[in-house]
Amino acid sequence: MFKMHTSLLLDLYELTMAQSYFVYKRNAFATFDLFVRELPDKRAYLIACGLEDILNYIKNLKFNRQDLEYLRKQKIFSGDFLHYLSHFRFRGNIWAMPEGTIFFANEPIIRVTAPIIEAQVIESFLLNTINLQTMIASKASRVVCAVKDKGVYDFSLRRTHGSDAAIKVSRASYMVGFKGTSNVLAGKLYKIPVIGTMAHSYVMSFKHELDSFLAYSNTFPEHTTLLVDTYDTPKGIENAIQIGLYLKAIKHRLQGIRLDSGDIVKLSKLARRLLDRAGLNYVKIFASGNLDEFRIRDLLKKRALVDNFGVGTHMGTSIDAPALDVIYKISEITDENGNFLPTMKLSKGKVTYPGRKQVFRIQDKRGRCVKDILGLEKEKIRGRPLLVKVVKRGRIIYKLPSLEKIRYLVKNNLSRFPQELKDTYPKYKYPVFISPKLKNLRRSLSYQLEKRQ
Amino acid sequence: MFKMHTSLLLDLYELTMAQSYFVYKRNAFATFDLFVRELPDKRAYLIACGLEDILNYIKNLKFNRQDLEYLRKQKIFSGDFLHYLSHFRFRGNIWAMPEGTIFFANEPIIRVTAPIIEAQVIESFLLNTINLQTMIASKASRVVCAVKDKGVYDFSLRRTHGSDAAIKVSRASYMVGFKGTSNVLAGKLYKIPVIGTMAHSYVMSFKHELDSFLAYSNTFPEHTTLLVDTYDTPKGIENAIQIGLYLKAIKHRLQGIRLDSGDIVKLSKLARRLLDRAGLNYVKIFASGNLDEFRIRDLLKKRALVDNFGVGTHMGTSIDAPALDVIYKISEITDENGNFLPTMKLSKGKVTYPGRKQVFRIQDKRGRCVKDILGLEKEKIRGRPLLVKVVKRGRIIYKLPSLEKIRYLVKNNLSRFPQELKDTYPKYKYPVFISPKLKNLRRSLSYQLEKRQ
Repeated sequence: MFKMHTSLLLDLYELTMAQSYFVYKRNAFATFDLFVRELPDKRAYLIACGLEDILNYIKNLKFNRQDLEYLRKQKIFSGDFLHYLSHFRFRGNIWAMPEGTIFFANEPIIRVTAPIIEAQVIESFLLNTINLQTMIASKASRVVCAVKDKGVYDFSLRRTHGSDAAIKVSRASYMVGFKGTSNVLAGKLYKIPVIGTMAHSYVMSFKHELDSFLAYSNTFPEHTTLLVDTYDTPKGIENAIQIGLYLKAIKHRLQGIRLDSGDIVKLSKLARRLLDRAGLNYVKIFASGNLDEFRIRDLLKKRALVDNFGVGTHMGTSIDAPALDVIYKISEITDENGNFLPTMKLSKGKVTYPGRKQVFRIQDKRGRCVKDILGLEKEKIRGRPLLVKVVKRGRIIYKLPSLEKIRYLVKNNLSRFPQELKDTYPKYKYPVFISPKLKNLRRSLSYQLEKRQ
Repeated sequence: MFKMHTSLLLDLYELTMAQSYFVYKRNAFATFDLFVRELPDKRAYLIACGLEDILNYIKNLKFNRQDLEYLRKQKIFSGDFLHYLSHFRFRGNIWAMPEGTIFFANEPIIRVTAPIIEAQVIESFLLNTINLQTMIASKASRVVCAVKDKGVYDFSLRRTHGSDAAIKVSRASYMVGFKGTSNVLAGKLYKIPVIGTMAHSYVMSFKHELDSFLAYSNTFPEHTTLLVDTYDTPKGIENAIQIGLYLKAIKHRLQGIRLDSGDIVKLSKLARRLLDRAGLNYVKIFASGNLDEFRIRDLLKKRALVDNFGVGTHMGTSIDAPALDVIYKISEITDENGNFLPTMKLSKGKVTYPGRKQVFRIQDKRGRCVKDILGLEKEKIRGRPLLVKVVKRGRIIYKLPSLEKIRYLVKNNLSRFPQELKDTYPKYKYPVFISPKLKNLRRSLSYQLEKRQ
């Protein structure tokens, strides 16, 4: 129903390099790490998200006749290589952090060990997927931390970058603690609760605001949240109260009112006072309109009396950091005899860590996270390894948890980190150490590579 | 092949309002304007993009059995209304600016006149589509203006927001003058030239840089661009020259070298000097690595000797303005007798223009654009009307131009505006006037609405 044939969603150079590997390195295996080089400003942690889509992609990855026909027409690929592509499947191993894992800069989120062509062909899709979903999960988690015990809903559909982002944003934000989404398709695909209020155009389509309120509440006597700022907000609140009393009289409850503009602190206090005075203390106050973690923190500091927030554009585009510095780097490759040799990049300011690595999370007796150690896979480090095997020789061996389960995990994971990490303006940096063995390897290899070139 | 069933890609309130309209305003017609309230910082113009997807959406918009089943389970919709939805089709009229039109704040890009339910149901998809594609086309156009007579290619796939954005970014950037994309699927779907060089991992998979260069050029003797910054750039340039001379000796031409890090100004001058000295003056210099219009302008001001630029993340996410202030507002609605009455929003700082409007572009004798006038559709204003009828009673009556044609149009359109508009740091504001009749209507209606509420 919502399927795309995305096998050609890759950068051309993945395929040209593949053809060259096909000739020169037919049997080489390599390991690649996918990681974020630096966290964006104001982000003290990131939340891994996107693995579900990646495993589905791996499962379905093949080039169909149309794809091959298109490639043939480019006149750069050999018949031999296109024949190889017609049988192409991913047959390597993948280790990954489960969705919902908290992680930090330089920690591999995904590690691929495979024939080098296969490891390379999947690069662009992996980066694209992790970039979007991890970026959004991380931004949305900041919003969840800022709202504290209040509720927050995803309203971003109209400003996300296209339809794929639209549904992924709903999923990622729900995963980290949003209570639901306005996006019906995402609700359907991912079983996320969907909610909605009304638009200004609805109010404006009636002669009087009160007529519009009445019509809507008669249609949904148990599910009405009235938008009160189309003309004059205090007057709108009064009209909503009339409706609230009317519904009460016929044994229904007005669900809420929504403030979408103006001074939310002042207006929410006014609304609460008037609603309570009218005996409508159960009516919730909903706030929306260009909100994000910064504004929500401000509103709550000023004691805005808001029960639920609707957050759209800022979260749905990660507006202050709309891309992660996520990269995919080779860390080892086999020599003529099939032995893995570590490798690394020396480009200015872009040096990487060589070898097959693992991330070890060290927790104290009470389960609180104390530090991470980035080390070599085979090192004996006391700590929970964060990368788990998800694909074995091309076969998915990981059982995808339900979204509800991941949602629970995120909450649990986050609770083990200090509060300072979750501040809207974080001053804390979680310690990630490099193991002595990895440090040594990097130093000696860097020397060796410089000499060799 | 690349199809999604996107009919449920809407905000829940579109459907709840629809159910209420279904009961209370069964026969009402309304007009909605889709426009950008304010241009983002540093944008002096925007380029309309997204109409092709919108018309395809309109054509295919219907709710299938699965959709209806999902909605039924939400327990808020009546059987009558769901039955109505099962026959739902868009049957209204749509006027739109053709893709590639230059436009400004407050000018409607799309105008919908339809039964109010239909006009409302399409809101979220229209906003999502225009937001992404117009934002990217506009950002990419700034990059095209900055590169002047040099070439520029889309390298953004790994950082665009998901797979839909990935292909739309390639299309939008090609539309406004990019020379091609690295995204193979976009190349296939939209017939955009695809290009690629090589990755650092390719170089690193060989023992020596020179081995990797040799292997690649033997695979693609006519299509090789060597990435020279994996270890030490000056040494990489020397290695590339060796390959260039080798290819020359066997009657082939090295296409280019790519610089992806370091001081591009210095390195490009060094590379050009060394290449020319070796008799390889035809070898192009390609630069990439976090480039955008600002950095490219700087590089060219400092006389970097770059022939082609690869631009990724910054353009593909419109990083400095990853959302447009694009909105969809009701401007008129029929009364009981079927007569259209203008309406408008009075919310603080969010006041809109009422009535059925048109944008008139005034050009001088030499075809240069002088000003725009936002007026009422029926006003007699001498100027080219920018909104054209694209959908008539639900039927697409607009012949979509080819992407190549739109690409030509954009170039032509832009050439009619003053250079100041296209500066990287624009100080110029193109004049958009409101017609006296529209001003009067807005004033009198605003007074009337305030009194009425």
